[in-house]
Amino acid sequence: MVFKVAVIPGDGVGPEIYFESKKILSKLVEMYRLDVEFIEIEAGDSALSRYGEALPKPALKVIESSDMILKGPVGESAMDVVVRLRQMYDMYANIRPAKSLPNVPNRFGDVDVLIVRENTEDLYKGMEHEIADGVAIGLKVITSKASSRIANVALYYALRRRRKVTVVHKANVMRITDGLFARACRSILKDKVEYNEMYVDAAAANLVRNPNMFDVIVTTNVYGDILSDEASQIAGSLGLAPSSNIGDTKSLFEPVHGAAFDIAGKGIVNPTAFLLSVAMMLERMHEISKDLKYLNAAESLNKSINEVYKEGKKLTVDVGGNSKLTDMIDAIYSKIT
Amino acid sequence: MVFKVAVIPGDGVGPEIYFESKKILSKLVEMYRLDVEFIEIEAGDSALSRYGEALPKPALKVIESSDMILKGPVGESAMDVVVRLRQMYDMYANIRPAKSLPNVPNRFGDVDVLIVRENTEDLYKGMEHEIADGVAIGLKVITSKASSRIANVALYYALRRRRKVTVVHKANVMRITDGLFARACRSILKDKVEYNEMYVDAAAANLVRNPNMFDVIVTTNVYGDILSDEASQIAGSLGLAPSSNIGDTKSLFEPVHGAAFDIAGKGIVNPTAFLLSVAMMLERMHEISKDLKYLNAAESLNKSINEVYKEGKKLTVDVGGNSKLTDMIDAIYSKIT
Ligand SMILES: CC(C)[C@H](C(=O)O)[C@@H](O)C(=O)O
Ligand SMILES: CC(C)[C@H](C(=O)O)[C@@H](O)C(=O)O
Repeated sequence: MVFKVAVIPGDGVGPEIYFESKKILSKLVEMYRLDVEFIEIEAGDSALSRYGEALPKPALKVIESSDMILKGPVGESAMDVVVRLRQMYDMYANIRPAKSLPNVPNRFGDVDVLIVRENTEDLYKGMEHEIADGVAIGLKVITSKASSRIANVALYYALRRRRKVTVVHKANVMRITDGLFARACRSILKDKVEYNEMYVDAAAANLVRNPNMFDVIVTTNVYGDILSDEASQIAGSLGLAPSSNIGDTKSLFEPVHGAAFDIAGKGIVNPTAFLLSVAMMLERMHEISKDLKYLNAAESLNKSINEVYKEGKKLTVDVGGNSKLTDMIDAIYSKIT
Repeated sequence: MVFKVAVIPGDGVGPEIYFESKKILSKLVEMYRLDVEFIEIEAGDSALSRYGEALPKPALKVIESSDMILKGPVGESAMDVVVRLRQMYDMYANIRPAKSLPNVPNRFGDVDVLIVRENTEDLYKGMEHEIADGVAIGLKVITSKASSRIANVALYYALRRRRKVTVVHKANVMRITDGLFARACRSILKDKVEYNEMYVDAAAANLVRNPNMFDVIVTTNVYGDILSDEASQIAGSLGLAPSSNIGDTKSLFEPVHGAAFDIAGKGIVNPTAFLLSVAMMLERMHEISKDLKYLNAAESLNKSINEVYKEGKKLTVDVGGNSKLTDMIDAIYSKIT
């Protein structure tokens, strides 16, 4: 099979990151004989201003026939691109590794936490109304189906890591909704891993107090949005965090950072989060195809990025270096074997 | 006027903190000739197991005729005590200072951020249902009335601090509810202070990256719950954080930490969060009565606590010392002038 990948270069720093990263993608494809086809599409703020839609029909058509989406950062229209795609294709698992890189200044030492965020329900359903003048309601939707499904994803990762899952909720206050989430997680996870539950406010504090007390955190959509940004900053920088949005038929891979319009076009942006997202995509290709070449390619990319950080000589300014985007790309490129 | 204060010693470490703190309360009352009457009541887990209700009728009766409530930590029934009282008496402003104390080991240096959390609506209204088997909904309620009201509280504090307010919301996703909150805040705050808005995920990361970029944060109930625990841990420790719940007719003061059953009865608990909450209560008495003696008493208490930390000789184990609860209380007591 050939994996069809729809690529959204995105807004702001997105296009330059993708443009420069292409040589790395090509090298990986050639060296590992990957069966991957990339198709570029336009979505986001630029598409919105050009076609009046953040996700225009031509882009949607390509996405419809693709297996995966590789997405750069998108500006203010991000919600209309990424939340819409998550819902549309039921990409229910948002996987957010918060993992330190060598030589990145960090107050917390080596951090390695994985946040598994439910990605389809909660207030992200977008069911909101102003029901009277100045009175608005939004529906938090939690189902046992989606909760069990994400608990199983957490289990999958925990068994490949330190076998420890913390279910984060606020069932002392949201007794019915978060209570249902907690019960579903408990019944799937409790006897299979080192299991505990924690209220979301305590989890936000404990990530600061001692991040490595966590291995895998599984939580609902809104809490996951907040805790994953916090955790990646604790691991070093939000700017370095990759993520995946996994569904049964399609998956989307994207850096967590935004479009950073202030530094766009200057050639100084850090490509790490995007490239780590590419590695997550390759890992997903391995999970689907069971073909080891994708895993090998992912590992080679991850290792190359890590080595460039370890050497510390070709890093962009945001992580304390003085290299340009192209220099950092070249350094990673040359390590890939 | 005499301020009537209903005191809930609470569960776990609560009673010993209150019992030992009494000598400090008495000294303040005598030295500053405060017109305060304390009435102890039982509420929380102990009341629940004894009377079948976390907030039994006798306690409610005392609270009804009191001006203020001074509450120690409560166990698992906290929701039924504190959230219920907040709603019942419309104590709409939850004030959470995240401020470093001298000699408390801390990765972030001196932090001083104030979180102003809307305290009556959002998902805390408790409007939840399981509408079908395995399908639960909860209502997030946001009104412009409550949003404007809390924005005005943020303004009040900002004008007494660094005159900077960050409104935290997620209006890119929750367009109607958080959109309404953001609009209400904007119209009250925008031209009166250094103003900006930030999405809650970015705020969670920025608190880690550079906490002092914030002065006053104003936000909705759920985000405020999460961010205030994160912020107080960043300032040093959740265990040291006081808070107030302010309403027009009644206010409640409480440490943010929990009942800590594991160390209860050992005489080693740190009384700081409770005593700082007492200081917040005295400040509120000054706001209401305009009588400076309450402010002077609050300042004396705050200063005494600070000095004990600065000297670093009578600190409990949680903050790196080896003193007992009574030793720390005595040290603070002897500084009060
Ligand atoms: C852009 C925004 C809608 C999105 C979200 O809230 O999910 C982003 O913050 C993320 O976490 O991927
Ligand atoms: C005990 C709990 C219901 C409460 C809350 O969520 O408000 C607590 O966490 C707090 O922040 O005061």
